[in-house]
Amino acid sequence: MNAASDPLARTPIPPYYAVIFTSIRTSDEPEEYAEMAQRMIDLASRRPGFLGVESVRDESSVGITVSYWDSREAIEAWGRDAAHREAQTLGMSVWYERFRLRICRVEEDRVFPVREGQE
Amino acid sequence: MNAASDPLARTPIPPYYAVIFTSIRTSDEPEEYAEMAQRMIDLASRRPGFLGVESVRDESSVGITVSYWDSREAIEAWGRDAAHREAQTLGMSVWYERFRLRICRVEEDRVFPVREGQE
Repeated sequence: MNAASDPLARTPIPPYYAVIFTSIRTSDEPEEYAEMAQRMIDLASRRPGFLGVESVRDESSVGITVSYWDSREAIEAWGRDAAHREAQTLGMSVWYERFRLRICRVEEDRVFPVREGQE
Repeated sequence: MNAASDPLARTPIPPYYAVIFTSIRTSDEPEEYAEMAQRMIDLASRRPGFLGVESVRDESSVGITVSYWDSREAIEAWGRDAAHREAQTLGMSVWYERFRLRICRVEEDRVFPVREGQE
């Protein structure tokens, strides 16, 4: 999570896109992993089309990170980013035991408590 | 998470639907909350159209639960379930400081490591 962010991403009115990344960490390289995970969030948040991110990992090594984007094209372009590619390679060789990534179109969004000016 | 489940939900080939529920807990009633959260997962998993669930909460009180469904109708029907309604009311009055719920259509799904018979 970058410093300025709310744990609940302040996304616009749908439709928009989400990438749900659910992962099980190995126990390898906790510091390197934490540093790279933060760096990826920082880099993603400067990409065109980025709308926000929500990320949680529990003590049992399971994590869910959801990033929000204005289009599938923005998601694909971030997937091809060189620094991101490098992180993906390390993720698959060192950091993740398993993961599952789902690309979704967000159709509806409800907030509690309801904020003014928001549906 | 129910006993039999994998932390990575074994969902079918897309398209299908996801509900991303991101929440910030109050510090109230931890035992009652844990019990109700488990009960809701057990009930949801017996509903028609339920495909799986992934759920993580960290020490800082932020949680992400993603449930997967075969249709929007199945999601809406679970939203109207009487026991679920009761939990929703308690959630808004006692357990959650804030939450955000997004309903999405999953368009693409990637798994690592790739399993046989899976795309």
